[in-house]
This record gives sequence, C-alpha cells and structure tokens, in this order.
Amino acid sequence: MNEIPKFAAPQSVTTGPVQGSRKVYVSPTDRPDLRIPLREIALSTAAEPPVRVYDPSGPYTESDARIDLARGLEPVREAWIAGRGFATVAGRAIKPEDNGNVGAERLAPLCPATRTLRAGKPGQLVTQFEFARAGIVTEEMIYVAHRENLAREAAVEGAAERIADGDSFGAEIPEFVTPEFVRSEVARGRAIIPANINHVELEPMAIGRNFLVKVNANIGNSALSSGVAEEVEKMVWAIRWGADTVMDLSTGRNIHNIRSWIVRNAPVPIGTVPIYQALEKVGGDPLKLDWEVFKDTLIEQAEQGVDYFTIHAGVRLAYVPLTAKRVTGIVSRGGSIMARWCLAGHRESFLYERFGDICDIMRKYDVSFSLGDGLRPGSNADANDRAQFAELETLGELSKVAWDKGCQVMIEGPGHVPMHKIKVNMDKQLRECGEAPFYTLGPLVTDIAPGYDHITSGIGAAMIGWFGTAMLCYVTPKEHLGLPDREDVKTGVITYRIAAHAADLAKGHPAARIRDDAMSRARFDFRWMDQFNLSLDPDTACKYHDETLPKDSHKVA
Amino acid sequence: MNEIPKFAAPQSVTTGPVQGSRKVYVSPTDRPDLRIPLREIALSTAAEPPVRVYDPSGPYTESDARIDLARGLEPVREAWIAGRGFATVAGRAIKPEDNGNVGAERLAPLCPATRTLRAGKPGQLVTQFEFARAGIVTEEMIYVAHRENLAREAAVEGAAERIADGDSFGAEIPEFVTPEFVRSEVARGRAIIPANINHVELEPMAIGRNFLVKVNANIGNSALSSGVAEEVEKMVWAIRWGADTVMDLSTGRNIHNIRSWIVRNAPVPIGTVPIYQALEKVGGDPLKLDWEVFKDTLIEQAEQGVDYFTIHAGVRLAYVPLTAKRVTGIVSRGGSIMARWCLAGHRESFLYERFGDICDIMRKYDVSFSLGDGLRPGSNADANDRAQFAELETLGELSKVAWDKGCQVMIEGPGHVPMHKIKVNMDKQLRECGEAPFYTLGPLVTDIAPGYDHITSGIGAAMIGWFGTAMLCYVTPKEHLGLPDREDVKTGVITYRIAAHAADLAKGHPAARIRDDAMSRARFDFRWMDQFNLSLDPDTACKYHDETLPKDSHKVA
Repeated sequence: MNEIPKFAAPQSVTTGPVQGSRKVYVSPTDRPDLRIPLREIALSTAAEPPVRVYDPSGPYTESDARIDLARGLEPVREAWIAGRGFATVAGRAIKPEDNGNVGAERLAPLCPATRTLRAGKPGQLVTQFEFARAGIVTEEMIYVAHRENLAREAAVEGAAERIADGDSFGAEIPEFVTPEFVRSEVARGRAIIPANINHVELEPMAIGRNFLVKVNANIGNSALSSGVAEEVEKMVWAIRWGADTVMDLSTGRNIHNIRSWIVRNAPVPIGTVPIYQALEKVGGDPLKLDWEVFKDTLIEQAEQGVDYFTIHAGVRLAYVPLTAKRVTGIVSRGGSIMARWCLAGHRESFLYERFGDICDIMRKYDVSFSLGDGLRPGSNADANDRAQFAELETLGELSKVAWDKGCQVMIEGPGHVPMHKIKVNMDKQLRECGEAPFYTLGPLVTDIAPGYDHITSGIGAAMIGWFGTAMLCYVTPKEHLGLPDREDVKTGVITYRIAAHAADLAKGHPAARIRDDAMSRARFDFRWMDQFNLSLDPDTACKYHDETLPKDSHKVA
Repeated sequence: MNEIPKFAAPQSVTTGPVQGSRKVYVSPTDRPDLRIPLREIALSTAAEPPVRVYDPSGPYTESDARIDLARGLEPVREAWIAGRGFATVAGRAIKPEDNGNVGAERLAPLCPATRTLRAGKPGQLVTQFEFARAGIVTEEMIYVAHRENLAREAAVEGAAERIADGDSFGAEIPEFVTPEFVRSEVARGRAIIPANINHVELEPMAIGRNFLVKVNANIGNSALSSGVAEEVEKMVWAIRWGADTVMDLSTGRNIHNIRSWIVRNAPVPIGTVPIYQALEKVGGDPLKLDWEVFKDTLIEQAEQGVDYFTIHAGVRLAYVPLTAKRVTGIVSRGGSIMARWCLAGHRESFLYERFGDICDIMRKYDVSFSLGDGLRPGSNADANDRAQFAELETLGELSKVAWDKGCQVMIEGPGHVPMHKIKVNMDKQLRECGEAPFYTLGPLVTDIAPGYDHITSGIGAAMIGWFGTAMLCYVTPKEHLGLPDREDVKTGVITYRIAAHAADLAKGHPAARIRDDAMSRARFDFRWMDQFNLSLDPDTACKYHDETLPKDSHKVA
C-alpha cells in the first residue's frame, strides 16, 4: 500500500509544537547544564499566567525542531554517564537471527547513529537504585525532581491543603519534590528511573506512587504490518500526546534494526519483552527456547539501550494448573509461552531458575525490571483468582532478589477486573511487593465492548491509578480486534492521560488542578481558544467546535 | 445542507435488527397479553444457548419492522389505561407560541396519530406510586418485573452467590424480580416507572437502585440546527444502541410539533425540561417568566405524553449568593434561568413556591419528577460546595412533598466531580432524599479533555452507578463544544452502556456477567462472529477487526 517500502530507513516524523503551546526548558539554579523540558500553554488573557505542563514529547515539539533520525537525538545524558567511569565495551556482533534472518533486499538498515557502548562492573555503582542506596543523588534524580515539580513551584502555597483535600490511600505525596526525596523513593524501591546507561538520549522520568501517574503506549510491528518509518512515527506520535514511556512489542522481521531507530530517537524510556524476540530467533517454537538464546537477547537489547524489560519470571510450573478451570486460560503472550515451555518438559521456568543471572545482566546496564504478570486474568470471570495471586506473591519474592542484586523493579498488573475487585489488587501488590511501583494494563471493567476497550479499561485505569498504581499501560480501541494504527495510538494515549490525570486529582496532587482550574475559568469567560489549547487534544476540541460554530467570532465570545 | 427542509414531516428512520441479533417477545404465563421485548444474540456454537439481553430499542429492531411514523407506534398500554377509568379530556388548544410563532411556511406538521387524551381526577388512583401505595400491582409493574428478570431466569442458580460476590453499598438487589418486588420498590419511592397515561406507546421500564442501571440520552434541536426528521432519527438511533430514556431538550422552533412525532414514536420514556419551552414562549427573557406560562407549558407537555419533567425547584433565592465565589458559577441552563429570575426581583423561585401546584398537575397524568440540580458544579473546583448541597437538601424536602401528592420522583445529580468526592454525593443523596432514585450527569472526573468528555464522564458514571445511581445521563464527545450529531449520540450511548454495565457487574447483579462470560468463552475459542455479535457495538467491532484481517477465514478460527 505504501509507496515507501516498509524496510526503508525512516525519513521524517511529526514535528512542531502542539497547538497553542511552546516548548520551554528550565534549569535548577545550581545546575544550569540540566535543561528540563516543559510545555507552556499561552492564555489569551493578561490576567492569568501561562500554564506549564509536564511534557514527555522530546525535542520533536520544539518550534524549530531540527530532527535527523539517522543521527539520533542529542545525547543529553552523555556527560553524566561519561563521568561515572563505566568501561567501554565492544558489544555483541549483530547476528542474522536478530532481524529474523531477513534477506538482504528486505533488511531494514541499522540506525547509523554511533554511541559509546558501556557496561558496569561488579562492585561499581551502576543503577539508579545502587546510587540511591549509597546516598548519592544522580543527575537523573535532580532532573526528575525538577520535572515533577515544575507546576508545583507555582502552587506551593496551599499545597498542604490540597494534599489533605485528596484521598491517596496512604501514598506520601510531598508538597514539593526535592532531589533528595527522589533519591529516597528510589532507594526504598518505591520509585524507579528507567534509564539504561546506553540510552543517553533519554530525558529521565520517574515511576512511583508519590509522583505523577505515568502512561505507557505500546507500539511494534508484526509479521502482518508496519515498517521502520511507521514504528518510529508511532513512537513520536505517542509521546506527542503524552505517553511517558513506550514499549516496542515488535514480533515481525527487522526487530533489531527497527529498535535501533526507536531507541536512538526516543526521549522516553523504551521497554521491551525480550522473550518475544527470543521466540522469533528459535522460529516461533516455545519448546526451543533456552537460557542461552534468552541471555543473548537480553544482552543484545541491553546494549541497544532498552530501559526496561518485561520478564515473566513469576509463571512457575506449579501455577500453570491453577489456570485449568479459567474461562480464558492464559492470555498474556509471555505467560503462554512460558506455560507451554514449563508444561512440555514438566520443568520449572528457566526465567525463575535463572533469575539471579538475569539480574546480573540487567544491573550492568541499569535495565529496570518490569516483572510480567503472565497469569493475569483475561476476563472478569478469572479476576483475582489463585493463579493470578500466586504469581503476584512470586513477583514479590523476586522483587527482593532484584533489589539485593542492585536492580530497579516495577510490577505488572491486570488485565480484566470488575470495579469492586480492583482495590484488592492494589492493596495486595503493595503488601507483597514492598511498595515496588505497580504498572497495570487497564484493568478492563467489563468484557462486552470490543472496539471501545480504551474506555472499558480507562475506567479501571483511573480507579487503580487513584488507589496507587504508578504507571498505566494504555489500551487502544483495537484491543482484542487488531493492530492499532496512528489514530488508535492517539486515542489510547489521550484516554490514558485522562485516567492518569483523574487519578492525580483524586490523590490530591498539589499541582494537578492548576490546569483544570485554568480550563474552568476559560469556560466561564467563553475564552474558546484557551479552552482548546488547555485541552489534552487541542486539534480535536477545535475541530468539534468548528463543526457547529465555525466562525472565528464564536471563538472569542 | 439537507435537501429535505428541516420542517418537513419525517419519512423514515433506521430499522432492522442489530447485527447478529433478533427481537423476541416473551410473556408471563398468566398474562399472555403482555409482550415483553428482548434481544436474542445467536451464537455459532451449539454448545451454548443464545444470550438474551435487555432491549429498549422498541419495534424498530424487529426483522420485519413496519414503521409508519405518521401513525405512531402500536399503543401497547392502551387497554391497560382504558381499564383504569380515567376521564377523557378535550385538551388544550395548540397556540402559535407552542411552536415558537413560526410562520406557516416553516411550520413543521403535527404528528397526525390520534390518541384518546386522558387525565386523572382527585381521589382517583393515577400514578404508579399511588397504585403501589394502595397495594395494587399494575400491568406496568408486571412488565417491568419480567423485563428486569429475563436474563435472570437463566441465572437463578447461584444468584445468591453472585450477589454476595458483588459490593452494592447497601442496595438490596433480589435474586429474582417479582411484580410484588417492583410494587414495593415503587411504593417506598426507591424506584419509579416513568409512564404518562397519555404515552400509550411506552414499553414500561423502571429506574431504581435495585434494578439494572439505566442510561438516558439527550436529543433536541436548537435555533442553529436539526429538523423534525433528524430529531426523530436521533431518538430511534439512541435507543437502538441502548438508551433507556430520551430527553428532548429542544430550544429551537417547532418544539411542540417535533415533540408530537417523538412521543408518538417513542417506546421509551421521554423527558423534557419545561422551563426551556416556557422561556421560548416569552421570547427568551427569563424575567418575563411567570407561573401562568409555566403552568400552561406543563399541561401542554403532559397532555402530549411526556413521561418526566426536570423541574429546578431547588434553586432557591437564598442559594444563589452561595455560587458567587465559584470558578464556574451556575452552569445548568435551568439553574441559570431561575437564578436570574430570583435575583432580578429578589423573589423566591415560583417553582419552589408553586411546587404543590406543579405536583397536582403532574399527578393528573403521572408525569414523574426529575428534580433538577440547577446548582450542580460546572468544574472540579466547585464540586460538593455549599450551593450544591444546599440545593440537594431542598430536593430532599421537595421529594417528600411530591410523594405526599402522589407523584413519582427522581433526583438529578452532578456534574463535574473528582473521583474521591463522588461517593459523598451518592451517600448524601440517599440520606437527604429518602432513597429516591439518583439520576446523574456523568460526573466528569477532570475538566481538561473537551472532545473526550464521554470518557471523562464515563469514568465518573461507572463509579457513581456502582455506588447506587439508578440512571446515568450520557455525555457525548461534543459536550462543551457543540451539538452532537448521530455518531456522537451513538458514541455517548455506547460509552454509558459500558458504565452502566460495569456498575451492574460491580454491584453483583446476578445476571450481569452472563454476557461477559459468553464473550470471554467466544474469545478463548476464537469465535470471532460471536465476539462481534455479543459486543455492545457489533458494527464497530467487526469493522476494526476487518481493518487488520479482512478475510472471512480469520473470523472463524
């Protein structure tokens, strides 16, 4: 369909500011070298200051964005990382199976951007967790503190009152975020800063219950669709609308080379599920998976700069029979792969047995764990069953192992859960996993609305975000039906930004309501352009308004 | 834009079954004359029975629907009403101002369907509430019991267990609904059956915390858009996708005559806000409103067969100053009109002062009250303030007056409310208003997403439905921006069906999960056609699937 072959190098992506906004950078007074991005929404009235909002969209939304995908983004972390004395390594050679053994004529090129490849050594401080435990505040922590804080500087007055007005179920949201607060949250495992030392283009961000609720968007090609350019554009498009991290779930050809373009051009953390690529390397047969191919894939992706890995190490042999009477069995792809592997040889999962080794690899690059919920319920009928909770208990056990090894950890959660069973998930996760950040998919509160599962899941996501989930994995309208296109990605991200923001408001985040209040005043004053610009999606708001009242005069009075 | 002038008589509407479904009618064994509608979704496997779902769509979704808009729907209640001995009345003559004084060449015709016009007398049992209090089970109550029960007949086994598995916050959902249960709920004011004795085409339904959560869709023309045919089609379209009641909020010309087409062709209760039409009659100036024009409008609409009226009688003079410091002031249109009226003359509201007279009129035709929340918050900043709650307390006082006068009552609720402040609304409403059904607009849990307010409000609607709201008033994507078109109406209804169903699931409604479980089994078996047909919107589910995998073979395996 496309004129450009799907294996060609990407040429361009969407750039330019979101309507009515401009990108600004601010620096801590004592660190003028740190440039923290913000989006500033101008208002049409002199009576109000512009509204500054959190902005994960990277340099793409600068007004004079000069993007060269082949060079990759500016390596903002390079100097910080260089200062930490990591060894430069040669790196693993690319193998044909890394790209699905695709023929030369269909091989997508590798992103030509060159970076110094590094790895930590035993005994050296490598991960943000290790630095935090050692009492050291990293540049990433300073960056995160200022980033989380920005709107709050304007909102310090009355912050305590607004926090008290919320209901955060025991979260400890501070009136003001200091770098030391970030350090302490990371040190106690309650927040992570996914930041591979080989992802120098990253604008650091934190995932934790006492920070703003974050949103992840999934992208990725399949055997059926999507080329290099399309995936890079999906990433840029997702962060434009507010995705805080992006997972590349590619399962088609050219996985390695597509990922090189994505990571080199990503200002947000990139997550993957390494078992997907490992499976491709063994021809799609789960029974051919083993530790060696998996280990090799971990190193491959860690060297590329992936910031977090979903590892389904909680799918233990003994838990698989617990799913036998389920209505929908095992719906997680990673969970199915590992259950098949365990059952076929009646063996304990190699991910579980090799968990210490996995930690050692991930620590070297500071790849964070996203401990996968391979046994998450795929239907309301299966919610909160023994299989799901047994796995969650194991994830708690593994969290402690990972922390002992120096790694950062978050925990994945369901799935399909009716409203009255959501809070139990959150409470159990906090208890079992020592407050490691929870990262949930929805949950979907009913099963009967394919085509609208961004909404069925957005309801559950808002609620579980309020209860304490740190990051919400988006669901698009195509869930259960097909692969999301660009419009679906946008709809999913906006829906989840609504859920995350609703959660921040309900928790009593001291700065969350600044934007709502600015919007409400614009409504009361009939300042239409301000209403559009303050909205999560100015383009759609403006378009819908113009369908009824297209005249410019209707926008100012 | 349209070739058919907007004042022409409507010719046709959307008819035919929803994809994969057929309309069936069932009767109680002892009342073969009562034909209760259901939608039956066939499944492709012989291993499972078809799934029967609640169906408010009326005869339009019969496979051989023969619809003649000029004759109106079959008057299914005519024999029941005729048996109650009401006086036949001549009725009020139509006045030019009823249709906005529109000239002859732009006057939409009156629906020519002729019906016997009736009115109750003092001392006579007229309303469902009066019959219920007298211990009499009406045909409407039998009809409602069977309608609410249908799916439950297949689910009696284990019903107690499923109720116990839910969390209904003190609702008393029965394992099985009997006509006597319906009567008792109506008698204690905990449910209403909006059913004007002059709306003989109505398929009766109940609104109450111990019944399935219902959804209302708003339609209506304005000075800017929509003709007769468009409004009738919007009504039929809204109920096709699951609206249980429809409010006609027209404010343009031809209001009276458009309404005649809507009511004569509506199988669902029709609600209105009479103050809107009254305001049109006095040229749009609130200060020209008085009891006489309002009273005349009530009689006009009651005689036409409108089933419930929003009456903003709780906006008392003393409460208006409580809104002075609000961010968004008074956002309810009815509330603004009455506040203006009160302030201008520093007078107590005539709706409050004449409330007893209003009850007397509404009782004569069994028009139910929807006591309007004219002071509902228009922003998260204003949620749960003193103005809002003072009005709610007055609505509680007025509920008791209405009950003493023999009327049915429900209570309208907000609005814009952050998640953590929603439950307080529900609890206070139950306490202040003696468990009269709550009927809420959303609430929207954040203010920053115009263009997506079906979602911001769907989150709040699901939650407040779970907590006990009996009917959810939909919000479309055009909220705050413009007038909804046909697609917006559908999106709004589907979103609210999700919210209502999620609430039923969470409350532990014993039959709610039947459809979810059938969907989940279809998913597990890869029965694609069953997944489409079981979904709230088969057309969209099928279309989304086909965008990725269009081949028929992908639908069966």
